[in-house]
Amino acid sequence: MSQQLGQFIVIEGLEGAGKSSAVSLVQSIITEHTGQTPVCTREPGGTPLAEKIRDLVKIADENDPLCDEAECLLFYAARTQLITNVIKPALAKGQWVLGDRHNLSSLAYQGGGRGLMPLVKAISDASLHGFKPDLTLYLDIDPSLGLQRASARGALDRIELQHIAFFERARATFLAFAAEDESIIVIDASQSIDKVHQDIRDKLTKRLLAVKRP
Amino acid sequence: MSQQLGQFIVIEGLEGAGKSSAVSLVQSIITEHTGQTPVCTREPGGTPLAEKIRDLVKIADENDPLCDEAECLLFYAARTQLITNVIKPALAKGQWVLGDRHNLSSLAYQGGGRGLMPLVKAISDASLHGFKPDLTLYLDIDPSLGLQRASARGALDRIELQHIAFFERARATFLAFAAEDESIIVIDASQSIDKVHQDIRDKLTKRLLAVKRP
Repeated sequence: MSQQLGQFIVIEGLEGAGKSSAVSLVQSIITEHTGQTPVCTREPGGTPLAEKIRDLVKIADENDPLCDEAECLLFYAARTQLITNVIKPALAKGQWVLGDRHNLSSLAYQGGGRGLMPLVKAISDASLHGFKPDLTLYLDIDPSLGLQRASARGALDRIELQHIAFFERARATFLAFAAEDESIIVIDASQSIDKVHQDIRDKLTKRLLAVKRP
Repeated sequence: MSQQLGQFIVIEGLEGAGKSSAVSLVQSIITEHTGQTPVCTREPGGTPLAEKIRDLVKIADENDPLCDEAECLLFYAARTQLITNVIKPALAKGQWVLGDRHNLSSLAYQGGGRGLMPLVKAISDASLHGFKPDLTLYLDIDPSLGLQRASARGALDRIELQHIAFFERARATFLAFAAEDESIIVIDASQSIDKVHQDIRDKLTKRLLAVKRP
């Protein structure tokens, strides 16, 4: 086993971008390169409390509709709990962590999609204290193609049922952040799955070799 | 019934300060003066979702201890939900609202007690958009006397079991905010219950008469 320090790698993408299969692939690549299985997380969730918070966010109650502020605050409550009790302790032990979504999702969906960027940024800044992934792979896809793929695999939840314009704003936000942050790599997820996976393997391997500390 | 607009009145105080009986008294006084029964809320809680959030905050899980950030974010998620779905709609209809705790509790307990003031203030500013009570009655009591009273009435929960120094910092924060905000009235809750209630009646009546719009 190499002596390199663990890193926090995150997969982001709109519904139907192929996030789940990308997570499996990246898990394999990290294991190949480091000799260790990464700690895998999903957001919102990943701790007993954060999973309960996930349930609150996912379930719609027409008598008590979730307001924008509460939705955002709940996502960050789950996130800080996951960072404090799972991600940071794993990194401190030298483990690798692989995240299925992280902060960029809040910025894209609530910030860009719902038009709450000042709220999201303020809460992000106040609660995360600058903590961020070492590397994010953003699977980029046109929302209409992504939702077509997602609807083919079953029922859509409350968030997935938002209007297409919501996802277009979210996508634009993902791309805007990627353009200004070299730790975010954009993968063209509209390609065939083989090509997408080859791109992920090529780009991730390059980064993993670059950070390797013998 | 008079034509005056509704106001949002809040009762704050450390455990054992006599908050519950003060809430009943204030409810009666508002009803006497306005001819309407106020909408009563408690925090955290007061909507179906906010009550579920309250449960998450109150229950300790030693395998997934609630981190400071998540605790604070959950309190504000419950609060924004209550403001959006209960307090603001009631005020918009001209109703009076009586709150058992509100934002000052977060500032005092998490901000002062836990030393998280920058986090609490940032989240408060970002999520409440300047919304605040028209009047707050803060029942001031020495924490050792308050906890003596509270323990006499039954089991203490996770928050109430914090060290006495925590409550002393919370009290100092309540008083510091009261000193700078004339919408916060301090009541000496170490007095006999009759004297406390007379003080509340005198001070609240004076304010209610002052705001009355014929």
